[in-house]
Amino acid sequence: MASGVVLLTGFEPFGGSTINPSQEVARRLHGTEIGGKRVVGHTLPVSLKQIGAAIDRILEETDPEIVISLGQSGSASTIVLERFAVNLADFSAPDNDGASVTDAALEGDGPTAIASRLPLRAIESELLAAGIPVRLSNSAGTYLCNAAMYLFLTRTEPETPCGFIHLPCLPEQVATALKAARDGQGPQLASTASMSLDLMVAAVRLAVEATVRHVAGAGVAIPGG
Amino acid sequence: MASGVVLLTGFEPFGGSTINPSQEVARRLHGTEIGGKRVVGHTLPVSLKQIGAAIDRILEETDPEIVISLGQSGSASTIVLERFAVNLADFSAPDNDGASVTDAALEGDGPTAIASRLPLRAIESELLAAGIPVRLSNSAGTYLCNAAMYLFLTRTEPETPCGFIHLPCLPEQVATALKAARDGQGPQLASTASMSLDLMVAAVRLAVEATVRHVAGAGVAIPGG
Amino acid sequence: MASGVVLLTGFEPFGGSTINPSQEVARRLHGTEIGGKRVVGHTLPVSLKQIGAAIDRILEETDPEIVISLGQSGSASTIVLERFAVNLADFSAPDNDGASVTDAALEGDGPTAIASRLPLRAIESELLAAGIPVRLSNSAGTYLCNAAMYLFLTRTEPETPCGFIHLPCLPEQVATALKAARDGQGPQLASTASMSLDLMVAAVRLAVEATVRHVAGAGVAIPGG
Amino acid sequence: MASGVVLLTGFEPFGGSTINPSQEVARRLHGTEIGGKRVVGHTLPVSLKQIGAAIDRILEETDPEIVISLGQSGSASTIVLERFAVNLADFSAPDNDGASVTDAALEGDGPTAIASRLPLRAIESELLAAGIPVRLSNSAGTYLCNAAMYLFLTRTEPETPCGFIHLPCLPEQVATALKAARDGQGPQLASTASMSLDLMVAAVRLAVEATVRHVAGAGVAIPGG
Repeated sequence: MASGVVLLTGFEPFGGSTINPSQEVARRLHGTEIGGKRVVGHTLPVSLKQIGAAIDRILEETDPEIVISLGQSGSASTIVLERFAVNLADFSAPDNDGASVTDAALEGDGPTAIASRLPLRAIESELLAAGIPVRLSNSAGTYLCNAAMYLFLTRTEPETPCGFIHLPCLPEQVATALKAARDGQGPQLASTASMSLDLMVAAVRLAVEATVRHVAGAGVAIPGG
Repeated sequence: MASGVVLLTGFEPFGGSTINPSQEVARRLHGTEIGGKRVVGHTLPVSLKQIGAAIDRILEETDPEIVISLGQSGSASTIVLERFAVNLADFSAPDNDGASVTDAALEGDGPTAIASRLPLRAIESELLAAGIPVRLSNSAGTYLCNAAMYLFLTRTEPETPCGFIHLPCLPEQVATALKAARDGQGPQLASTASMSLDLMVAAVRLAVEATVRHVAGAGVAIPGG
Repeated sequence: MASGVVLLTGFEPFGGSTINPSQEVARRLHGTEIGGKRVVGHTLPVSLKQIGAAIDRILEETDPEIVISLGQSGSASTIVLERFAVNLADFSAPDNDGASVTDAALEGDGPTAIASRLPLRAIESELLAAGIPVRLSNSAGTYLCNAAMYLFLTRTEPETPCGFIHLPCLPEQVATALKAARDGQGPQLASTASMSLDLMVAAVRLAVEATVRHVAGAGVAIPGG
Repeated sequence: MASGVVLLTGFEPFGGSTINPSQEVARRLHGTEIGGKRVVGHTLPVSLKQIGAAIDRILEETDPEIVISLGQSGSASTIVLERFAVNLADFSAPDNDGASVTDAALEGDGPTAIASRLPLRAIESELLAAGIPVRLSNSAGTYLCNAAMYLFLTRTEPETPCGFIHLPCLPEQVATALKAARDGQGPQLASTASMSLDLMVAAVRLAVEATVRHVAGAGVAIPGG
């Protein structure tokens, strides 16, 4: 029995920011209908300790047909479609619980890596055709974003389309950081690229549409699929 | 007798692009009123041979009180307020006349450099307060943008606020370049950062407002100024 | 019966270059003894079609106890220790056979990714202690370097230390590219970082030493290991 | 009466580093003879308050025919030949006296900018021919390096060849910073590029030779020059 739910997750703010574009996009699309599916938005904690239980709870509540997890990337200047999640957590900048970790497995006996189950090339083509900068990436890092991608992929069925999209910072986040750096109250930024919330929302909507179409196409092509 | 005109110039597209954000911003603000001044927008040719005469003609036609010249930067990820124009043209990528040049002076006996006459710190503060990424830059390069800045500064009165603002590419320009690179029909991009046209228009509007206020303030503070 | 051989592979030049630092390092260390092991250097073809057979042949010839594969990275500015190889070949810039490929698996039924079997943190510590810039990386890309890493890892025993190290370009390669760009005969470079051959040789020697020590340590610590 | 002295200045370490490549290069070449001239090396303080007096003292002591000032750039990956010094000091990261400054003129009534009086294109060609990565730059920044360049140019005769060359960090500086970042005790680095001291010494030696030849050539070509 299909739930008709597309799950979109974002993350809470972290790293001194008061906003996170991934959370904003999930909020903006929550409750809308895309391609005949109902979008349910949820926020994940930036906490290695809590993220696994949060993902289990959200999956149980929403029983999604499609999962697209979103996260903020401080170095991205485009929409970034992640190809792989790896079984590794490794970060020195503390998460929102104040924890850092070195070379830890996410799942003791999990596979080394899992590939995205979203139609990445179709999404890429849709976004480029719509004039939205997008690229594929071979690494989602080793912070909470990769953890979310890995855990969603291991805790959903192999036939559930599921994957992760990194978003650039919002212009106001970069402006805040530039102001702090100018005033000698923060580090120089490695990247000052940003993207408007409207464009990110449009990008994620197109990604959901392409995924819904992909599922429908697969349904036709593969009897019993 | 003050003309009440704020001159905004953009450039025509170049480098294989069919659009130039600086031209779009000048068009969008052309005919509007900002701070009691009338905005007149003009487009400059991406041509070292023609740009001097074009600037002379536009200055004669518009008799501006304030000049803000805009240009596209392929490497900018924020609004960039240029501090200096230098007496140098040096570029190997040909301009729209197919010309390239090595180490040529813009004005045979001109000063080595001229500083912007816009209130850069006031503009920076306004933009950061409005959540728009902006930074000051010490070099406008040695292509047509620097040439426009240098020639406007040498051909207007020393008390005329005059300067140059670099803009990032538009999202659709980056998407087009990414599509070409993906298809093996164009080079990898050095930068994939972009900014929405709306945010650029808001930024330039704020820059004009801050400059108009600066002129008014200077008028009060400096009798005869 | 242990062969006592450390296999070091580099790649032939590609992408218009006449030299490849990975080949030079493998040549410089070929025939030397490190930690009581004999280093055998080999060169791999930059060819997706030929690389699998070349690797099989080299492994048969050398029967190595340790495999460290080296490659050139146009964007690296440090020694780069790769953590993962992925089952993917995807590149639009043609290899030395003129072939390009989109989203192809390296091994039809191979695992999504395989982790390096080198003692990466020990190598990192050795190099940093010796004043050599080094970092760990989560992606070896999807070109021939990743292919070499993936194929060596799948075609050696799980207990054979085996992995991949990316090297920056040599100074003379960057100088040649800068000269071409200056003369309008080549693209602007995304990165102009380089490293001296001597420092790369020292780095790889330390990496071999750390790996030999790691094997010996494992031999003591794990009876029967 | 020509002194026969080539003055090479470097800077003392700053920003938490215990070494500065510019000081090391000046030390290594101090006392050598290049193109028939005697090299005298000196170290400048990283102090806006002290640098002017230091430069005056060094110029009086050495009475140089040629001045090449060197400095470390945290973002350079090549030898960088600076084209212009500007009449501006502006930095939030404190100098070695703990001072920072916003938008201050170096000389109250000095020119906006002064161009390098070194034969930059000849130096560029020599270095590229020798396989050393080098590029021209339009901005020496607004920190102490630009201050040194500006003050040397204003305090020497217009016919004295005088200019500034930026050097990348040394490998050991980058290694130290990477170790600190790995251990969570320092910021992520904006750039991790480095260059060996030997290559920097070779580059500066070639720059001096090209400048000496340029002076000699000018002497022949321009009677009374």
